Order: sequence, then C-alpha cells, then structure tokens
Amino acid sequence: MSERKEFHDLAPPEDAHEAIASLDLGGDTESVSLDDARGRVLAERVDAGLDVPGFDRASMDGYAVRARDTFGADEADPVALDLIGEVHAGVEPSVTVEEGTAAEISTGAVVPQGADAVVMVERTTERDGVVEVETGLAPGDNVMFAGADIAAGERALGPGTEITPREIGLLSALGVDEVPVRGTPTVGIISTGDELVRPGQSLNSDAGQIFDVNSYTIAAGVEEAGGEAVLYPHAGDDYDEMERILTEAAAECDLVLSSGSTSASAVDVIYRVIEDGGDLLMHGVAVKPGKPMLIGRLAGSAYVGLPGYPVSALTIFQTFVAPAIREAAGKPEPRTATVEGTMAVEERFGQGRLRLMPVGLLDDDGDRLVYPVDKGSGATTSLTEADGIVEVHPDTDYVSEGETVEVRLFSPDVRPPTVLGVGEDDPALSRLLDDLERPRYLSVGTREGVRRLRNGLPDFAVAAGPVEREVDAEIHDGWTREWGLLVPDGNPADVGGLNDLVDADLRLVNRGTDSGLRRSLDAALDDLADERGASRRELTDAIDGYELTVRAYESPARKVAAGDADAGLGLRATAEKLGLGFVSLGSQDVRLLINPDRVAKSGVEELRVALDRLSLDGLAGFE
Amino acid sequence: MSERKEFHDLAPPEDAHEAIASLDLGGDTESVSLDDARGRVLAERVDAGLDVPGFDRASMDGYAVRARDTFGADEADPVALDLIGEVHAGVEPSVTVEEGTAAEISTGAVVPQGADAVVMVERTTERDGVVEVETGLAPGDNVMFAGADIAAGERALGPGTEITPREIGLLSALGVDEVPVRGTPTVGIISTGDELVRPGQSLNSDAGQIFDVNSYTIAAGVEEAGGEAVLYPHAGDDYDEMERILTEAAAECDLVLSSGSTSASAVDVIYRVIEDGGDLLMHGVAVKPGKPMLIGRLAGSAYVGLPGYPVSALTIFQTFVAPAIREAAGKPEPRTATVEGTMAVEERFGQGRLRLMPVGLLDDDGDRLVYPVDKGSGATTSLTEADGIVEVHPDTDYVSEGETVEVRLFSPDVRPPTVLGVGEDDPALSRLLDDLERPRYLSVGTREGVRRLRNGLPDFAVAAGPVEREVDAEIHDGWTREWGLLVPDGNPADVGGLNDLVDADLRLVNRGTDSGLRRSLDAALDDLADERGASRRELTDAIDGYELTVRAYESPARKVAAGDADAGLGLRATAEKLGLGFVSLGSQDVRLLINPDRVAKSGVEELRVALDRLSLDGLAGFE
Repeated sequence: MSERKEFHDLAPPEDAHEAIASLDLGGDTESVSLDDARGRVLAERVDAGLDVPGFDRASMDGYAVRARDTFGADEADPVALDLIGEVHAGVEPSVTVEEGTAAEISTGAVVPQGADAVVMVERTTERDGVVEVETGLAPGDNVMFAGADIAAGERALGPGTEITPREIGLLSALGVDEVPVRGTPTVGIISTGDELVRPGQSLNSDAGQIFDVNSYTIAAGVEEAGGEAVLYPHAGDDYDEMERILTEAAAECDLVLSSGSTSASAVDVIYRVIEDGGDLLMHGVAVKPGKPMLIGRLAGSAYVGLPGYPVSALTIFQTFVAPAIREAAGKPEPRTATVEGTMAVEERFGQGRLRLMPVGLLDDDGDRLVYPVDKGSGATTSLTEADGIVEVHPDTDYVSEGETVEVRLFSPDVRPPTVLGVGEDDPALSRLLDDLERPRYLSVGTREGVRRLRNGLPDFAVAAGPVEREVDAEIHDGWTREWGLLVPDGNPADVGGLNDLVDADLRLVNRGTDSGLRRSLDAALDDLADERGASRRELTDAIDGYELTVRAYESPARKVAAGDADAGLGLRATAEKLGLGFVSLGSQDVRLLINPDRVAKSGVEELRVALDRLSLDGLAGFE
Repeated sequence: MSERKEFHDLAPPEDAHEAIASLDLGGDTESVSLDDARGRVLAERVDAGLDVPGFDRASMDGYAVRARDTFGADEADPVALDLIGEVHAGVEPSVTVEEGTAAEISTGAVVPQGADAVVMVERTTERDGVVEVETGLAPGDNVMFAGADIAAGERALGPGTEITPREIGLLSALGVDEVPVRGTPTVGIISTGDELVRPGQSLNSDAGQIFDVNSYTIAAGVEEAGGEAVLYPHAGDDYDEMERILTEAAAECDLVLSSGSTSASAVDVIYRVIEDGGDLLMHGVAVKPGKPMLIGRLAGSAYVGLPGYPVSALTIFQTFVAPAIREAAGKPEPRTATVEGTMAVEERFGQGRLRLMPVGLLDDDGDRLVYPVDKGSGATTSLTEADGIVEVHPDTDYVSEGETVEVRLFSPDVRPPTVLGVGEDDPALSRLLDDLERPRYLSVGTREGVRRLRNGLPDFAVAAGPVEREVDAEIHDGWTREWGLLVPDGNPADVGGLNDLVDADLRLVNRGTDSGLRRSLDAALDDLADERGASRRELTDAIDGYELTVRAYESPARKVAAGDADAGLGLRATAEKLGLGFVSLGSQDVRLLINPDRVAKSGVEELRVALDRLSLDGLAGFE
C-alpha cells in the first residue's frame, strides 16, 4: 500500500474556524451598475449628491398660485385669478406668477417663480382666461419643496446595506448608476480523483467511473454564500499535475477548495503540494464527518481541503467555509438558514469529536420533527433525504427523543417535505407523488416500510403484495399491478411461467425480501412447491440467481435488457416502458397505510385527494 | 385641462387578483445547464437514468475478498489469501478473485469479479504476496452495491422542486447536465413621463426633470419574483409613441408593466392604446394606493398598469403582480416575505377601499413593533424608511395600538433596523451611524426628534444647540460642532458676524425651526437684540431670507455655492467639505438622548459603544 497520512493530532473545530477566518478571502470594494446591484451589499455609505426633488414640485394637477392671493376664498366666495399660462412636467416654466395670477400646472411640474402653492383642479372653475379658486391655501400646499424628499449631503444608505428593490429605488432617485459594493470572493474548485467524469460526458461504469458530484454541489454553495465559483479540471493523484492545477487556481482565485475524491493518496499529494509551495495551517479537525480537512495558503490564495463524500463535503463547506465567504462578501446569514425542531428519536454518539449529524425534517402540523439520516456518507441521495445538520458537542453521549435541536439547513432555500412516505417502489406511485406539494418518499420496500410505520415516524407507508399482519393504520386501496417475469423482447427462451424458471436453465435477477414483488414471487413458489410436493427451498435452489437481488423495481428488467440475465422479477408496466417481453405471474394490490397519528395532517389530506383522483381517472392517467 | 379619465366603478381587489391570474405570463418549460440551475424550479420529475454507483464499489481502502473465505477468521487465527493484484479507482479491474485469493483495492474502486466484500487494510497484514485477514466478513461488507444509492428508474426529484446545492448534487450524481426547469416570465417595463431621466444621465432640474425610480425598482422586484426584466425607453403622453413602445414590448415579453409617471394624461393615453389594440379587463381597483391600476392584454401579452409614485408602484407590484410572476415561474413565496408584529400606535382609516399601509419595523428586544410611515407617497425615501405593507380591510376603521398585524415586506431580504434614531442631522452622526449594524435614522431636526422621543417610538434622539426642556432620557454627551455663516470662498462680501447679517445687504438661506442650528442662531439673535435694545423680530425682519428655510444641514451651503445666496446657516465642517468661506458664530453641543425603555436593547448598546469610540478617537476619526 502507498504510505498514508495519518491525522493523529486533530485540531478543535474552533481552531479551524479561526484558521479560516485568518485567511484573506478578498471581497474588496468594486463598482457595479445599478442593474446588477440587487443582492449585493453596499461597501460605502451613499450620501445624496443632489436634492430630491431638485425643484419645488407640484404634487397635484391644478393651478400654481400665490397662497396669500387665496386667503379667505371658499365656494361661496371664490377668488378670481388671471390665467397666465401652463406648466407641464418635464418642461421649464416660461411664466412667473405675479399677484392676482395663476398658471395651470400638471403633477410633477416645476412650480413657477412667484407661486408657492398649488390648488387642485377639483377646487377651481376655469372660464375665459380666469380661474376661480374656491378654497384658501397656505404656502406649500400641494407642493413638494426641493430637497424635501432627501437633500444633498444627507445620509441615504449606510455601508453594509443589502441592496433590495427598495434600495435600488432610492439609488435611482439619486441618479446613482454605479454602486460601490462589497466584492465577490472568487472560489476555485478542484475535484480530485481519476474516477471522476463531468455530468453530460459518457461514463464507463466498468472502469469504476462516477460523475463528479462535489464540484457542482460546492459551486452552488459558493454562489449561494455570495462567492463566484470557478471550476477547474479534475486532478488525479499525480504530484506535478496537482501542483500545476492548484497553483493555477491559487493565482486566479481568492480561495481554492479541493474536494471530490475519497482517495487517501490524492489527499496525501495535496498535503505535500501545500506544504511545499505554501503554508499549511491545519490538517485534521476533530469533527465527524470531515476529519481530514486541510486549511492553508498557496501562492497568495487561501486554501481549504474538503472531505470527499458529498454529504460530508457539503456539511464541512456549510459549517466552516460558507460563513467565511459570506463575511468576505459582506452578506448576513440568511434568516432561513437555521430552524428549530424536536428530535423524533433518540440518537447516541461516540464521544471525542464534534458530530455534524445529517437530519431530515418532518412537519407534524405545527411541530417540526427531526430525525437522523444515515445512509453512509458515500450516498448522494442523503443530500436530498436529509435537510440539514445538527451540531452535537463532542461531550454529548446522546440526544433524547423530544429534545429541541437547532438544524442548520443545507441551504436557506431548503423547505421540509409536506409529507413523508416509505415503502414499496412503483411507477404509478411516482406519478401520484408528482401531484403532491413537497413529498419525500423513501423506497425501502414493503416490509421495511411497514416496520418504519409501526415505529411511528413516517406519515404513510406503501405496501404491495400479500396482506401485512395487522398494522394500526388508516388503510386505503390504491391500485393493482400485474407482476411477473421480464424477459428479452420476443421471449427468445420461450419462458411460459414459474415452472420454466425452476426447470429451465434460466438466469434470474430477483428483488430483495423487503420488496412486495419478492413476497408475491415467494408466495407463488410456495403454491408451486405444494403442488409439486416439494419444499420452497428445493425450488429456489434450482433457480439460478434466486439469491441475486437488486435494489429497485426496474433494476431486474434493466439487467435483462443489458443481456446480463434471462429473466427478471418485475412489472408489466416496466416491460412496456423498456420494450421487454413479459410473462405474467399474477396481480397484486398496492395499498396506502396512513399513520393513525397523522390522519389530520394537511400533507396527508393532499395525499388522500390525489389518491381519489387516481381512483377516478384510473391507472391510465398514471402509467 | 385635458380630459381626465375618472374611475368611478372601482373593482374589488379580489377581482384584480383574479384578472391577473387569468393572464398567461409564460413560464413554459425550458432547459438550462446544471451550472445555471440553482434557484430554478424543476418543471418535470427526474428519474434516475442509471444506477448510482454504476458498479459494486469499495467503500474502504483494503482487500477485495470472497466473504466465505474469511468465515471464522480473527486476530489469533487469521486467514491467508494469495494476493493476485490491485484495483484502483477509475480503472477496470484486470483480476478475478477466485477462492483463496484477494486483490488490493482503493476506496471507490470496482470490486472485482468473484469478490463480494472488502476487508479494511487495518484488519490485515501483508507480506510476501500473501495477505492475512484478521476478521470474518459477510457478503457486502464495505461494498456499496450498484444502484444501492439510487437505481435506474427510481424517482429522484419531483416536479416543482426548488433547485438548491443539494439537488445540484443529486443531479450531477445522475450525470444530468441539462435540467428541465420552469421558464422565466419576461417582463417588459415602460416608464411614462416626459420628465424622466435615466440614472447616470444629466438632469435638468430647472425643467422639472427627475430620475426614473420605478423602472429600476420594479425591474429588481420582477427579478426577485423569478422573472426577467426588460427595460424599454420612456414614453411621453403621445399616443403614437406610446402605442409603438407598448406594442413592441408586448411582442417581446410575456407581461408588460407600465409605471413611472404621475401624469393623468399619460394614463389616459395608455388606457386608449390598450382599449384600441388589446383587451382592457379592468381599470380602477378599490385599493389605496393604486386606484388607477389597469389590467389587460395587448398583442398576445399580459398588461398591468402600475401607479406612478414609487412606494405605490412597488406596493401594487408586490401585492398583485409579484405573486403571478412567482406562480408562472413555479417559485414559492419566500418564507421571509411576511413577518408578524405589534402596532406601536393606533392608526385610523377612511373606509371603502382596501388600504395598503406602508409601515416601518422596529425590534424591541423580542417584540417587533410596527408603525405607519406616511411621508406622502411621492417620497422615494419612504421606500427605505418603510419596511413593508400592512393590508387593512376596507371595513376596518382603525388598527389599535398593541394589535398584532402581518407585514408583507417590500422584499424577502428586508431586515428591520437594529436601532431607530430621530433628530438633528450632522456629518459626524452620519459616520457614527456607519459603525452600527442596521441603523435607521430620520433627520427631522432636534425639536421634532425630541417630540417623537417623548412619544416613545424611537430608540434615541439626537439634539443639538440650546438644552431641551426636561426629557425623560439617558443623556450622552456627543460632540461639539462649530456653527456660523457659510459664505462664498474668500468671503467677498467681507461678512464679519451677525451684525453684518442684520445690517448689510446679504441674502441668507436659513434652516427650519426644528433644526438645532436655527435655535442657536435665534438664541444669538436674541442676545444681539438685547445688546441693541431691539426685539428679535426687528432684527429678523432686517435679514433678507430669514424665512427662507431649507431641509438639511448642507442645503444652505449648497445654495451659497450655487450663487443663489450670500450666506447660509451651517457648520464649519460643511464649509471645509464644499470649499466655502466660514464666519464662526459659536459652538454647540450634540447630545444623544436614549429612550429610557430601550436602554437595555442590543442596538442601543451598540450605539453606546460606537459613541465611546468616538469620544476616544475624537472627531478627527469622524469628520
């Protein structure tokens, strides 16, 4: 094995925060046009450079008059003034209002010399070059004096102000078209790992290639925090290549983040590049996940090395790096970045390291439930099955059920699901979920789904196949699905039914025992065994691949389509979708089991409505 | 006068919402690259098109083995397996693990044919081509099977999902580089009014020109709501020009918004253009502000006419138009769009129309206070002095002090001020405010400031000049400022002091009676009157321009600098800033009066700290 870098002396997380805070992430003042200023943060105070309005402005349509000419006027005893002309908005007045005269004026127009008030048109009568004013006015009536809105020299907006539409409005009123704002830290992102391929390119799974997840996730996180992300080419674990890419990124960016590989040797190489060419401030932090974090400087740029697994990378980024980017960009933490919730279950921890626990959220009409999500940090689906992170102190042994915890969301825009379901996977169910506002569905199979429903967390479970032993739930009939064996198009092996599967030389791909499909298959095999006077075990031993199980309802079919198997357990709908042959073995009911504690929840009501629509429209609308 | 369109039959606001909802604002599905997908909304469900991982993947560094070969192994009795090669991440395995053999494997690499488990390197010893395995393994140990994360055909993300960094992560894992998202409604914005000038261009105030505020404010609001704003040239009230611009915008955009002018004749012209060439659905809505709102269709595009005053335009936009743009773009209303608060004062209303009341917010350590802001809707500063809108039902006569109200913020990014001050304006104060997190300061002058403090709403008042009659406040000495007469550079009229102002033929620009400067001037005039055995009135009658008052502390100086006056009341600091001559008439103290109910508030503590820093650093740090 190659030599591995061990991180024996893990630094406390606070030191990691401090080390990152000590780095210069840029964010110097820059100037942007007013069109591009929304969402930015003012770097300097903006004082009014001119009076708004810049002139005494009529705030009504009417007549500009000298107020003292109208003293005592009323409807019974109007004052007659000679009309000497008119003033329109946007035009310099050509008249002066002398004693005993008036000028017609539009809203927004300059109050002409001599006049100090405007009488609204509704309080006047005009005829033959004379206007009768039917009300007495005070100086300033219906006039906005120059500078009355804001005067030259007044403080308009302070430094640190976030620019929203209303600040844009005030800046435009002041004629400001270039706005001094806090700069955008430029963040270079380098994924390491020879196995990485960019989304959109072709993937060779046989060679263990995977799509690059971290580059794109972290880039989106950088931009959310107010930085500008720059993606660099992948680097393998070759020292020279890594040094070249890191140095290039460091020269062009304020901060360089590496991430993406789980390879220990790539981390070793980066470690050496930073130590040789820069300044390694910290390696290894007492946090889980994220232990092998690196913090340093390279070629005048700041550097942070993130862990490789996607959830770990995003967690460490959001916990340690995003706050520093926001600070450099002058952006406050969004108010929606954290929420409070109640632990739905107890969770125990090993001591000694700060634990960043990925959790899911579930609204229970008012209460917000929090539950740990642990699919292994290598799972990318944890990104969307969890909503955020709970920080658990190193000395904490456990967090109790019912305890209030603070959840830092993966993004301030994350919204908890409106309803949480678990259980069987099914194509009609996928469509049903599309009708709901924000469902979360964990396809763990019928058996595991029912087990979880019994434990009380999900709002509903979906069960398929033989009826479950008694469950305390509001049970809704869903739909019926035809299941059987998926075979190559045209059924070249002429598979006729279950007998052939046992007797002929066919390679099967099966589903796991949690699946309702598997349970129907096993029930059918029991019947066949009874018929033949054999045990089920005798039959299954005769089926090549009976123990070869795959994860999802299309998976066996796809193995057949790829030529890796002769038959797969699955649905008629899948055979039609993938253009495969289908040997029917039966039909099974799909049922929705609703958690009795959640029957009144709005997300559950939405589910019931969608299910009723399904019953009315029939499966045709769904498949 | 030109004929005016009257809106006698005002439609109920609900009808306006319905009319706008009936318009087609676009938002058809479009495809964006993964890089540009953040913040967009998925238009369609995304199912996994491939298994993730695409192969059985080692999740540890170690050795790929056949689990059954290790049954019973432990440290005392390890199993020796022949090492047949190695497998790296990103490389297709060249070996098959037969019985009794093992292959070295890196995290992320393909588990080779024959192997079904990985033993971590820490539980092995390697020597001479043999690896000793010191633990028993079960099939699947340290292996993530193909599709275990997400399998081809599984539902990955539902339609309507907002794309945040975590969704970007899952999409990249699936290799998706083009994402089907809800379209962005294109919104054309046309400002009307001959008097409008774009920010950055030169302004002729004498001709009544003003900068265009609404175009930029509304454009920012459109983008915040998920639309794309397109600014069109200003249009005056010429029918042909208006028709040409409106038709061009309608041809290019999903929605056209007109706004910007307060001119009744421009509204009349638009009304006719829409009636002649399109379909006018509604004119006039029973809402205040916003009565003359127009809703219709033109050339296949939707059209809404907004009122002219900036606060009214933004209010009507946010109330009626933004929800429709969000709906078309598939975006949910941001969670921070509305907040609850407690009315700090009673407010009474005329009945009959829905009232959209602009309000300011003030946090009173825990309590959120709400107070009406009414500077007249023509004021652009109301945009930043108010934080949002309270909807008051047409039948409501008043909202009581202490009543809980819901405030729709002008923008979801608006944050209430941390501290609210009122009173005298001053350049050192401007700097002091720069040191605070999110201050709001209303420069209403010393007298009005102290009055408002007595009424209890602000956190502090700033007073300058002669000491106020007793105020219940925690009083802090601030700084001293030198005041006097600002004269042209070089003092050409050789103004020596107050005597010259009274006796010589000088035109003064004064400040209003709320100003502390004015009160010091009046006190000095009282002294001079005593000295001369005259009344103050006799002296002030002799001063040309004594009654000519302007709004802010720099305003008199700017009149002098512009050649419009011989002397202006002001500060030495202003004379230095603007390069004017200065005739000192005295010094006055500036004091901070803190609301006794708010002494413990954190924003007030921040103010105290900043003030202490000012005392330590001296004025030099501030001016």
